Amino acid sequence: MEYIDARRAEVEQALAAILPPTPDCPDVLADAMRYSLTAGGKRLRPVLCLTAADAVGGDRRLALPAACAIELIHTYSLIHDDLPAMDNDTMRRGRPTLHVVAGEGMAILAGDGLLTHAFNLLASEPVTNDPSLIERKLDVIQILSAAAGPMGMVGGQAMDVASTAPDPQGRVATLDATDLQRMHGKKTGALILVSGTIGAILGGGTNEQIAAIGDAGGEFGLAFQIVDDILDVEGVSADLGKTAGKDAASGKPTYPSMYGVEASRRMARECLERAGHRLAAAGVADQHLLNIGRWIVDRRT
Amino acid sequence: MEYIDARRAEVEQALAAILPPTPDCPDVLADAMRYSLTAGGKRLRPVLCLTAADAVGGDRRLALPAACAIELIHTYSLIHDDLPAMDNDTMRRGRPTLHVVAGEGMAILAGDGLLTHAFNLLASEPVTNDPSLIERKLDVIQILSAAAGPMGMVGGQAMDVASTAPDPQGRVATLDATDLQRMHGKKTGALILVSGTIGAILGGGTNEQIAAIGDAGGEFGLAFQIVDDILDVEGVSADLGKTAGKDAASGKPTYPSMYGVEASRRMARECLERAGHRLAAAGVADQHLLNIGRWIVDRRT
Repeated sequence: MEYIDARRAEVEQALAAILPPTPDCPDVLADAMRYSLTAGGKRLRPVLCLTAADAVGGDRRLALPAACAIELIHTYSLIHDDLPAMDNDTMRRGRPTLHVVAGEGMAILAGDGLLTHAFNLLASEPVTNDPSLIERKLDVIQILSAAAGPMGMVGGQAMDVASTAPDPQGRVATLDATDLQRMHGKKTGALILVSGTIGAILGGGTNEQIAAIGDAGGEFGLAFQIVDDILDVEGVSADLGKTAGKDAASGKPTYPSMYGVEASRRMARECLERAGHRLAAAGVADQHLLNIGRWIVDRRT
Repeated sequence: MEYIDARRAEVEQALAAILPPTPDCPDVLADAMRYSLTAGGKRLRPVLCLTAADAVGGDRRLALPAACAIELIHTYSLIHDDLPAMDNDTMRRGRPTLHVVAGEGMAILAGDGLLTHAFNLLASEPVTNDPSLIERKLDVIQILSAAAGPMGMVGGQAMDVASTAPDPQGRVATLDATDLQRMHGKKTGALILVSGTIGAILGGGTNEQIAAIGDAGGEFGLAFQIVDDILDVEGVSADLGKTAGKDAASGKPTYPSMYGVEASRRMARECLERAGHRLAAAGVADQHLLNIGRWIVDRRT
């Protein structure tokens, strides 16, 4: 974990320098964004991004602004998910959620601000005149906006909302196991997947390396979701810092409810194995990258 | 108005082709985004963007995706502003607001989706291998995200929310006339300003032309706000398609309340004059561009 801890420290340091955006961000908004950004997450996605840049032999510093942008987007998604109109969660990572402390309107705006500022960061940094790096920055914006937007994360969240709460006409969508997998792939998987891809692109990886790291990131994202479901069932709410048992109680199909806990654990480990084979075939079977997979599967929060 | 109508038709046609984003945007989300995007706005910002590209002698088609992206961002901002946690408006442009028809959660997500997809559009189109255009696309993303984000539009909205509704600790910020101007400059002015700048950049304008069009756009934005305040006081709610008299009733200082209606009208016309001088000095005193200013000042909605 030493390598991962060192990358996380780099991310924390860079994130601390991002807020307030200059020039002239109102304090009330900067405070709200900072409250959620510094709430002490795992920083899995940005660490994966930096590790991917290393794994292709690139300069990790070129990927640091993008790694931070990914974490801004992840943070915004948590703020909006927690809102009363969505999951209505009042606790997150052991602290009151942002809308509880700053009000609903300010929480919506803090999410909007983090999302928008992520793209400002991607376009602004690293400052460069290198045409190849300029092109890669634009590729990264395209990939990240696709993964985070209506085709990706926002789309997954919309499927979730449509299947959970009745709309004003009283309609609720029903999801079968295939829909559910599609929903999770969008809502959780897409951003984890592209975190690796983006690091590989900014690290100057070959197309083959980038594709393999993307595939491995897809497996990591799936493993992440399976483990999330298991942790929810096992009810470790103190560790998770959020309300455990919520998905299970709501009657939503989960991996443990469909396959049992033991088979679910095996499925998560199989994701890692497939990721390992895929990376090895492309010559990027980097130990640190594989360790991130193990971290995802072994985590208790 | 013939020129403006023709540009608006180009924008409408391009916007109609944008949704649903492909591949694989859930229908429920695409429907919600489309409801608001096709609600029949003036399309002022994208028309200004295209006109600026023309005014510098550029190829207007290169600016069309960015013009659409600006309208996506404007539309998202209206959806979030209308939410119960913000302005709590149930009507917009003569139709029920999105959260009334699709629910609050889906409205928040439709806004998030439009905002994120705007950056996807900017990064994706126009497809090009031209290093100069690639660089300009990246500049545009930087400028637009700054204008729309915490330093700009979202920041202005946060100032508005903080001064209107008490936060959970019961605090309400008070704004003096200077704060109010700063708030409007961010909330409304910034996006109008950069609409011209972005068109001029993508049209391949010189730095001097880009700066002059940006300054003129700043005057247009200010004129827009002054006229908005006048229309609110005059209570033309049928035309505006939203609740008129709301700002006046809430006791917020407005241009008419500070300077009277006649002086406010004169101030709006003076914005146009300054814009005209600025454009003339840079050799881009394009009639169509000036007509957009007149349209802003003469509008009844």
